[in-house]
Amino acid sequence: MSNTAGQVIRCRAAVAWEAGKPLVIEEVEVAPPQANEVRIKILFTSLCHTDVYFWEAKGQNPLFPRIYGHEAGGIVESVGEGVTDLKAGDHVLPVFTGECKDCAHCKSEESNMCDLLRINTDRGVMLSDGKSRFSIKGKPIYHFVGTSTFSEYTVVHVGCLAKINPSAPLDKVCLLSCGISTGLGATLNVAKPKKGSTVAVFGLGAVGLAAAEGARLSGASRIIGVDLHSDRFEEAKKFGVTEFVNPKAHEKPVQEVIAELTNRGVDRSIECTGSTEAMISAFECVHDGWGVAVLVGVPHKDAVFKTHPVNFLNERTLKGTFFGNYKTRTDIPSVVEKYMNKELELEKFITHKVPFSEINKAFEYMLKGEGLRCIIRMEE
Amino acid sequence: MSNTAGQVIRCRAAVAWEAGKPLVIEEVEVAPPQANEVRIKILFTSLCHTDVYFWEAKGQNPLFPRIYGHEAGGIVESVGEGVTDLKAGDHVLPVFTGECKDCAHCKSEESNMCDLLRINTDRGVMLSDGKSRFSIKGKPIYHFVGTSTFSEYTVVHVGCLAKINPSAPLDKVCLLSCGISTGLGATLNVAKPKKGSTVAVFGLGAVGLAAAEGARLSGASRIIGVDLHSDRFEEAKKFGVTEFVNPKAHEKPVQEVIAELTNRGVDRSIECTGSTEAMISAFECVHDGWGVAVLVGVPHKDAVFKTHPVNFLNERTLKGTFFGNYKTRTDIPSVVEKYMNKELELEKFITHKVPFSEINKAFEYMLKGEGLRCIIRMEE
Repeated sequence: MSNTAGQVIRCRAAVAWEAGKPLVIEEVEVAPPQANEVRIKILFTSLCHTDVYFWEAKGQNPLFPRIYGHEAGGIVESVGEGVTDLKAGDHVLPVFTGECKDCAHCKSEESNMCDLLRINTDRGVMLSDGKSRFSIKGKPIYHFVGTSTFSEYTVVHVGCLAKINPSAPLDKVCLLSCGISTGLGATLNVAKPKKGSTVAVFGLGAVGLAAAEGARLSGASRIIGVDLHSDRFEEAKKFGVTEFVNPKAHEKPVQEVIAELTNRGVDRSIECTGSTEAMISAFECVHDGWGVAVLVGVPHKDAVFKTHPVNFLNERTLKGTFFGNYKTRTDIPSVVEKYMNKELELEKFITHKVPFSEINKAFEYMLKGEGLRCIIRMEE
Repeated sequence: MSNTAGQVIRCRAAVAWEAGKPLVIEEVEVAPPQANEVRIKILFTSLCHTDVYFWEAKGQNPLFPRIYGHEAGGIVESVGEGVTDLKAGDHVLPVFTGECKDCAHCKSEESNMCDLLRINTDRGVMLSDGKSRFSIKGKPIYHFVGTSTFSEYTVVHVGCLAKINPSAPLDKVCLLSCGISTGLGATLNVAKPKKGSTVAVFGLGAVGLAAAEGARLSGASRIIGVDLHSDRFEEAKKFGVTEFVNPKAHEKPVQEVIAELTNRGVDRSIECTGSTEAMISAFECVHDGWGVAVLVGVPHKDAVFKTHPVNFLNERTLKGTFFGNYKTRTDIPSVVEKYMNKELELEKFITHKVPFSEINKAFEYMLKGEGLRCIIRMEE
């Protein structure tokens, strides 16, 4: 055990005091982990749209002050009572959704939507006692999705930690704790394209490009990228995208454009934008008889998916996925191995790097739509 | 070869002269089969809703005079040029949709939607020459879905014939050429419930009960039948249905009723009514994480399927099927074997039997919603 075990740790954290206002680096107190909790030292974290979405707090109940952050890699500092799977020194990826290993979802081979530890964006406290482990001069600071990785130390439920190969570089594999696994898993675990097949990817942000990377790993012969921003097309080639369609460049619906390009439809499509229109196009552009469309992007709360039922009856399939159908503890370590054995490429997702003190720059890049992922290193 | 090979055969057929008017037994001429065609002697046929729907001709272009009928069993009388798979004396089931074995769909392991021989309800003639093989005093009578089994002899494309075990009783297995295979295959080939799982079936007509039969064969532990007619519930028990829900008996949507009955949803659901409302309920009543809903029932042409996309994102799957995903020539013979080895029960679907001369009684039973299937025997 480290010599800080059982004690409050004082460290730096980037605190969001108000919706949409720059984060402030503060000294916070991080309480020791309670039963089934683990305190980890974060080495690298990155910024994902979900952090920005909840920090802007335009569509949800605001919960401030709060420590955001959920894509990260770290090392276990100490563990709470009852934690047997992890010990100080283990390398881990904290994940916004967990795996209790005990509920119907965890026991199902198909689901990763754990009843106990499924993502909860409204909760700002720990499950066990309804309290925060973060404070500033005794006043609690809220957690975010059980991870709060914009802090040098954080406390996470053991079910939300993937124990990974200690030789994996945390400044790269930290990306696997959210967006990249989400897109990659949507292709590898849900769409499952066969070798030589044709795949369409809607939305060429980090998640969509990870879906394309999955199609590349699967040996797809054609990967059609669909995006409203043509300037994304050049970079997408690095991720295996072979053709590009900008819906704005066509008068007819993009599903018809794709059907013409592909002799009546793609074998698989993956929707990573969350736009209802894109969802409908992604479904209707798959080939009858065998086409499978997978929804990844999260829609707004009043969205309605509509289609003629005959599109289903002609033997098309529509599925949705959450975190690429990966189970946090069971599956994520093997995704890290895919990187370690050079099957999966992560470097190309990293377009920016900043020290922790400049974390607000990462927000600026994302708000400007500049680049894919910004790695934030906790050590200056 | 039979001594009628190569000659016109004169025989009895039930001709529909006008939409919705009783069929008339007439003497018709049946021309010899041309290239890739087979002339068969029909021994037993039954009546399916699709016959009635097109005979009523309320929603489509009327095509009369026409010989309906597409659920049947018969024996090959003679074959046309190029037919090598079948010979006189073979027992066959004619099917409304075929398998050319040469197109992308036939070559796909997943699809049965043959490009060449996919169902075509508008065409009343043979593919090869655009002509009918039926006539009365030289005036052509139209075919229906390539089968026209309400005739003692008919001519069918070789790709629309399943060659079956000659010891199978045609008065039973004739049912496998349409509705029963459609429902059974929806469960066995598409929904694929695991042993011990919970299955909901929407619509307890012959197709829905065949879907329930599939769930029974799969070892489902609970089969929930959903129908607006409570008088169907008693009979449904024979098909493995264990519980019944009549949506009219509840104020809340039936998907919520089912979710309450099943701890948040069934593992699989199969929609056999064609009602858009039932489709939405069938989808929304499956469990998140792993639930699969399968659409079988054919909707009206302006139907719109609507749901909140989050229902997909929570890891639900929606698929459609056509003829239970069975390939006519490759798969249907093995369904006959399921009956022969007493796995599949067919007798319970047969609620009426009439001689050919009383075929209009079969229409009356169906229009009254009385019973499931009426077997029409061609020999008086």
